Amino acid sequence: MVLDESKIPTHWYNIVADLPEAPPPPLHPGTREPLTPDDLAPLFPMGLIAQEASTERWIEIPQAVRDIYRLWRPSPMIRAWRLEQELGTPARIYYKYEGASPVGSHKTNSAVAQAYFNKEAGRTKLTTETGAGQWGSALAFACDVFDLECEIWQVRSSYEGKPYRHVLMETFGATVHSSPSDLTQAGRSFQERFPDTSGSLGMAISEAIEVAAADPNSSYSLGSVLNHVLLHQTVIGQEALQQLAEFGEEQADVVYGCAGGGSNLGGLTLPFLRENLDGRTSTRLVACEPKAAPSLTEGEYRYDFGDTAGMTPLLKMYTLGPDFVPDPVHAGGLRYHGMAPLLSFVKHLRMMDAISVKQREAFAAGVLFARTEGIVPASESNHAIAGALREARQAAEDGTSPVIVIGVSGSGQLDLPAYSEFLAGDMADS
Amino acid sequence: MVLDESKIPTHWYNIVADLPEAPPPPLHPGTREPLTPDDLAPLFPMGLIAQEASTERWIEIPQAVRDIYRLWRPSPMIRAWRLEQELGTPARIYYKYEGASPVGSHKTNSAVAQAYFNKEAGRTKLTTETGAGQWGSALAFACDVFDLECEIWQVRSSYEGKPYRHVLMETFGATVHSSPSDLTQAGRSFQERFPDTSGSLGMAISEAIEVAAADPNSSYSLGSVLNHVLLHQTVIGQEALQQLAEFGEEQADVVYGCAGGGSNLGGLTLPFLRENLDGRTSTRLVACEPKAAPSLTEGEYRYDFGDTAGMTPLLKMYTLGPDFVPDPVHAGGLRYHGMAPLLSFVKHLRMMDAISVKQREAFAAGVLFARTEGIVPASESNHAIAGALREARQAAEDGTSPVIVIGVSGSGQLDLPAYSEFLAGDMADS
Repeated sequence: MVLDESKIPTHWYNIVADLPEAPPPPLHPGTREPLTPDDLAPLFPMGLIAQEASTERWIEIPQAVRDIYRLWRPSPMIRAWRLEQELGTPARIYYKYEGASPVGSHKTNSAVAQAYFNKEAGRTKLTTETGAGQWGSALAFACDVFDLECEIWQVRSSYEGKPYRHVLMETFGATVHSSPSDLTQAGRSFQERFPDTSGSLGMAISEAIEVAAADPNSSYSLGSVLNHVLLHQTVIGQEALQQLAEFGEEQADVVYGCAGGGSNLGGLTLPFLRENLDGRTSTRLVACEPKAAPSLTEGEYRYDFGDTAGMTPLLKMYTLGPDFVPDPVHAGGLRYHGMAPLLSFVKHLRMMDAISVKQREAFAAGVLFARTEGIVPASESNHAIAGALREARQAAEDGTSPVIVIGVSGSGQLDLPAYSEFLAGDMADS
Repeated sequence: MVLDESKIPTHWYNIVADLPEAPPPPLHPGTREPLTPDDLAPLFPMGLIAQEASTERWIEIPQAVRDIYRLWRPSPMIRAWRLEQELGTPARIYYKYEGASPVGSHKTNSAVAQAYFNKEAGRTKLTTETGAGQWGSALAFACDVFDLECEIWQVRSSYEGKPYRHVLMETFGATVHSSPSDLTQAGRSFQERFPDTSGSLGMAISEAIEVAAADPNSSYSLGSVLNHVLLHQTVIGQEALQQLAEFGEEQADVVYGCAGGGSNLGGLTLPFLRENLDGRTSTRLVACEPKAAPSLTEGEYRYDFGDTAGMTPLLKMYTLGPDFVPDPVHAGGLRYHGMAPLLSFVKHLRMMDAISVKQREAFAAGVLFARTEGIVPASESNHAIAGALREARQAAEDGTSPVIVIGVSGSGQLDLPAYSEFLAGDMADS
């Protein structure tokens, strides 16, 4: 089921307008007072800062952004007939597939928007960090579209271990450094203190921020966690609602999304939550996180730093603490100690459930999905599929036929080494 | 522009019915007499042999095959707005994109059909060879769908140099061997004669055929060249014609497809040729081959063997001779000494043009395409894009606005090492 281009949403949806109370604000790390727009101005353009704090329900998507969305949006929603058959389940399973985007994941939905608002603000360059590489490739593509320079610090272990990823960023014209690099004060200091380090997201963030903060023509871009990033991703859930209706379904009984920093999960589920809040539906929303980074299922709901170095604003969120180091699971995009404050608040209000999945269960689900639906899902997406499989198997036992929606956030073509490890029986069950 | 599922073609189109004369038949390598169906029976099921020799115009696509096609068909046709803008050309450029299929190329269109007819004939296993790995992954997926065993010999240099590819085949449940292997008489003999060989398509074919021929429950599958393979691929061109009409175009002025063995080129162009033969259109069809394997542009039109060992039937085709060894260009899927007999005949009748492209021009076109359209094309597809760019630039000079259709046969996500070489300036200009 692919909607006509004319059905690409015209607005992003802001859940803040519909929540029963305002989410706790981010705090300045020094004063512990609520953050002001000016506090963020050195790093982000005003257009994005306004979105971050907005309480408007609908925020118009600029035509230039919609023009780029047309390259892969509306993304398909597909009935998983063969998966249902294989499971012998009376459940009706649909998946919303974001892997056909230019870089193979949902990340482009926000990257294009961020590049656009930076261009509008007169910035000429964006910096960012990337771990597994999905966000970095998305921003590289988006900067290419809007003629912005793009400089990316990729965690060294990933830069060296996943060489296809940085080539993809370079193909889109970005400059990619292995982090820690010699190019920043932070990078040089990390190398001195940890001579053999394979890098970390925290280090890469410090390098990208240092370069952006030092140059008034540059901004820093973040691929998840923040409100404006989740906002941009709501095109996913809005389209999914339309597509389910065209399939003739009255509502989704349950929606499964994978949970890392929260951008895919939020983009998929928040439009469904709006329908619930309006009383039109009673859809259960389920966050699927890796057992190795179980912020929603085992973390505390409190103010914490967004990064490991403690340089960012304090965010009220489910967190495992900034020093938490997850096991090196393959779903690099889910290895985050916290969770988007907006989703944390929604979970805190009991409007969303959460489960955790070990990676062998996740990859077993991914292989079954590949063998039935023909799409090899991203490591991250496998967690959502695993959650949905539990539900579909339960439905088979109970003889019920729930409508299940799975968010398949990306393609696993560049995750094949992890599949190899799983198929060989060598994958740790973290 | 994505058509509704209901628009998936119901029949494959057989150009043989509409050609002014019958194409020269394949000859038995021993007797030099036209091949009979019985000659092919040890290797192929009767359903496919009948298609190979059919003169019927329309051959119904079994419902079970259409059900699988629904996973990725109809494939999208996209107006390349940003590419046009970048080129400053008044040409209207459309591309038909096959890269969103399960394994990222058009090869699944025939793999699924072949697996189906083998299953119908009671076969339990298929063998094949694969070079770059696109065909092998497509057949692995198709065998998985119809519960057939799948055993694949992958050219050693590719098996070792492109490890993602065999993991993809294994994810779909296939067994993959590096060829030459110890498992066949042919493989052992190749290893003895060429101890340090990195393998070749010819060797891998010999191994796959040996195993299939020795087991009445097994068949051998081929991913290109033969009539029935081109037939299955005609879903591409049929959909493209419908999509162009929905875009409001009266006709394509020119269609560019990349040319290796001919399966993508034939599938794309033969339905357009039918419109020409019916007098409804005057579309120019252009085969784009690599300068390193220029069968159509520099080969002879004569009977030749399909393989290097001289074991196959004799096929009347444009050929560089069975001993021709192409330079090791990256477009592995185009490195073939001959060309599908059906397309060779069409070219011989002057119903199709051909050009050759060096690989640096091809990759420059691919990078421009990626940076404007957001899709990194397969190495093979870059040749078609390069041909179209020549035309679009000429149109800009001449101030004409032709409608150009490009066949983008696959995604380049697993070709990124070649892009890396190109971007670094290290690519040989073969």
